[in-house]
Amino acid sequence: MGGTDDIEALIDLMARLPGLGPRSARRAVLHLIKKRGPLMTPLADALSHVAVTARECVNCGNIGTSDLCDICASEKRGNGEICVVEEVSDLWAMERGGAFKGRYHVLGGTLNALDAVGPDDLRIPQLVTRVAEEGVKEVILALNATVDGQTTAHYIAEQLEGTGVTVTSLAQGVPIGGELDYLDDGTISTALRARKNF
Amino acid sequence: MGGTDDIEALIDLMARLPGLGPRSARRAVLHLIKKRGPLMTPLADALSHVAVTARECVNCGNIGTSDLCDICASEKRGNGEICVVEEVSDLWAMERGGAFKGRYHVLGGTLNALDAVGPDDLRIPQLVTRVAEEGVKEVILALNATVDGQTTAHYIAEQLEGTGVTVTSLAQGVPIGGELDYLDDGTISTALRARKNF
Repeated sequence: MGGTDDIEALIDLMARLPGLGPRSARRAVLHLIKKRGPLMTPLADALSHVAVTARECVNCGNIGTSDLCDICASEKRGNGEICVVEEVSDLWAMERGGAFKGRYHVLGGTLNALDAVGPDDLRIPQLVTRVAEEGVKEVILALNATVDGQTTAHYIAEQLEGTGVTVTSLAQGVPIGGELDYLDDGTISTALRARKNF
Repeated sequence: MGGTDDIEALIDLMARLPGLGPRSARRAVLHLIKKRGPLMTPLADALSHVAVTARECVNCGNIGTSDLCDICASEKRGNGEICVVEEVSDLWAMERGGAFKGRYHVLGGTLNALDAVGPDDLRIPQLVTRVAEEGVKEVILALNATVDGQTTAHYIAEQLEGTGVTVTSLAQGVPIGGELDYLDDGTISTALRARKNF
């Protein structure tokens, strides 16, 4: 490389971001060096700032800059519904949808016997405690439609049996804008079984 | 979004990097927040450090941390050959190849009438000066095989006429590992015309 050690070290760090490889990290660093004032310095400042201030919400596991995240802190969101998601990115995806008005609970992953991920690694006990303490009426399981996600959903449903809370899950079917020809057989069968009056 | 303003500002900045969109910027920021100690803080430090120290080599236009880049500063590289490239990324690509032992000259783009990019925007006058002053024997035009790149190459060759310097360009033909069936017709014709004894 024609750059110096400092620049190469920066490229190596950038290449460790998900979605960037060595080639795109080089491109990004050259772009940043070209835009030092408007982009590189603000990005460096934002990174060091968030590195110090970011923390997990003690209640739900969302990422914010205070001990209790904005959603858990908001009285309006305390409507007795908790939406259980695997990761913070899923929570943000649900929020972008804008349809859910309750609070969340981020598990931090899914049960996985091979990787030795058990219930205690996943904030499942905290969920059971919240259901008892927060006067929750409904727990919506918004886990990914994967084997691990569904295993975890079943486990959580078992844990909540006898608490009187309603446990629901997201509907499965044809996605909006989806074309039947491009859908997998499992989705089509599920959508057919769950058909509803038009 | 469930994050706070600081985190959203960071995501917006990350999304302005080439190769990252809003979705991958969110993924990258969540990854960074998870790896605050080993990745986020070092990345912030490296960015602010390079933002201050990075500069263009006054001689060739390469990016480094001193006024004269390592290649221009090295006596070994002063072998009378100058390789002309469009961008710093092309210089780095040539260096990864490792076959070129001379010095470089980064134009900073190509001539483009539509975008009003003229010779004076491109460090072409500096190239002509260097050829006269550095005792250059050969100028290798390693510009991209695009219309703009080849226009620029022809313009530079004209400017260097009468200086006694040899002007060459990279060979065009079948890339290593290339399959004829996947090559465009222009490349095949060029490779055929430039065929050589086996």
